[in-house]
Amino acid sequence: MIKVSDPCELCATPGGEILWESPTCRVIRVDDPNYPGFCRVIWNAHTREMTDLEPAQQQHLMSVVFAAETVVRRLFAPDKINLASFGNMVPHLHWHVIPRWPDDKHFPEPIWGATQRQGSFSRRVVSHREWAAALNETLNMTEHQN
Amino acid sequence: MIKVSDPCELCATPGGEILWESPTCRVIRVDDPNYPGFCRVIWNAHTREMTDLEPAQQQHLMSVVFAAETVVRRLFAPDKINLASFGNMVPHLHWHVIPRWPDDKHFPEPIWGATQRQGSFSRRVVSHREWAAALNETLNMTEHQN
Repeated sequence: MIKVSDPCELCATPGGEILWESPTCRVIRVDDPNYPGFCRVIWNAHTREMTDLEPAQQQHLMSVVFAAETVVRRLFAPDKINLASFGNMVPHLHWHVIPRWPDDKHFPEPIWGATQRQGSFSRRVVSHREWAAALNETLNMTEHQN
Repeated sequence: MIKVSDPCELCATPGGEILWESPTCRVIRVDDPNYPGFCRVIWNAHTREMTDLEPAQQQHLMSVVFAAETVVRRLFAPDKINLASFGNMVPHLHWHVIPRWPDDKHFPEPIWGATQRQGSFSRRVVSHREWAAALNETLNMTEHQN
């Protein structure tokens, strides 16, 4: 049985290296060698569900998720994007933004599904600096600094 | 190896019993006895990614997803909601809205993860008619008929 997090690790820690942050949410890097480009958008306050947010907050958070998707597509050129918000173990709103390739470890299963193959590691290498700059540029352009 | 859908089954069929529909998207019932309340929000046009939609379309689709979440929470009283958009097998935008309970088949894993237990079936029974009416009422209230 996997232990459900208590106290909340997304309140206690950033949850990863921060690529971009605003007063309401942050984008962090997930360092999974099978999924370069995998990042999470984490709401800063300890909120459980999207429908516990006000409509303007929902819209803001999703606009950051979609900006993160735009940047991942541009920098890592995946075949497909997967988006997911679960929070079963850590019930603090966070979105997974996951680049997928037909030769990755789990394709076409979700990354939480059964392993399909070893997976290829010949992906483009993107530095933290380049990724952070692209996010900053995209989010500034779309005026999502609130 | 799981076969990737071709031609697109979400263009060729509704993808399930329709609970609510508009000119741009539809909500269908997923009849999984482990997850009563599980539904999908499907974009009607064959679009691959959220960032292939215009911002107003993204916002509209997410508002329907969040309306579906509101209704599932009210009617089925789950402990947690899971939201996901993958499209690895059927690359046609669709959102999974999944009610979760601590005694369900996979909790705290995503439903695509390893089975944790048999799972309880003592959930509230909601008729198609009641569910459709609640969705219609919620979506009318929030004026998402476009």
